[in-house]
Amino acid sequence: MAAPSKIILLAHGSSDRRWCETFETLAKPTLEAVAGSVVAYMELSEPGMETVVAEAAAEGYEHVTVLPLFLAAGRHLRKDVPAMIADMEARYRIAISLAPPVGENPQLGLAIRDVVEVTLANSTPAGANS
Amino acid sequence: MAAPSKIILLAHGSSDRRWCETFETLAKPTLEAVAGSVVAYMELSEPGMETVVAEAAAEGYEHVTVLPLFLAAGRHLRKDVPAMIADMEARYRIAISLAPPVGENPQLGLAIRDVVEVTLANSTPAGANS
Repeated sequence: MAAPSKIILLAHGSSDRRWCETFETLAKPTLEAVAGSVVAYMELSEPGMETVVAEAAAEGYEHVTVLPLFLAAGRHLRKDVPAMIADMEARYRIAISLAPPVGENPQLGLAIRDVVEVTLANSTPAGANS
Repeated sequence: MAAPSKIILLAHGSSDRRWCETFETLAKPTLEAVAGSVVAYMELSEPGMETVVAEAAAEGYEHVTVLPLFLAAGRHLRKDVPAMIADMEARYRIAISLAPPVGENPQLGLAIRDVVEVTLANSTPAGANS
């Protein structure tokens, strides 16, 4: 009755609304390209991951893939998020997979290099007025 | 007596050493491409930003560019890092510029889209055994 898998593009979240706005702009090409994808936050911002999972379960999805838009996996992705997922799987009777964070793909390292080179070329490294 | 500008690729830092290892792998293409670039951390990991700035000042650099490998600017990049920079500029008598985070460049959004598409194609969205 619904698409086979809901895709959560997981972000950390921030008390600063501008952080989320930048993040949502960054995620826009992905949201446009990937059917059934939405941004959700681990903490501090809305919608939270659980809100989206509850909606997906109510809409009849049987599976959710959580894909972290994180540069690297630390405590959050190794402990906190898996614990949240285990809890939501039991509560909403839905299967949830956790994909590796985008930063683990070497392609992202090449893109960062290109962006850094452009950023540095556009910045004025003049020694200020010291 | 030294290159005109030291480049700090700024990361958040983590108490999880594996986070830093993933991050350094991610930064490797940039470190190889950008002369005078090093990774430094805002907190929790070594080398800290101040360690690198102090070394740069001792080596005769007159200017440091801090380029955040962050996906978005929140409280850290809007308040904490500028305050740390103002303090270090006074203490080490060196000019420090703060560049926008890599996530503000739309090119990174396109790279994330490509990585997400590859990650989803490689993941097995089988509905587990529920």
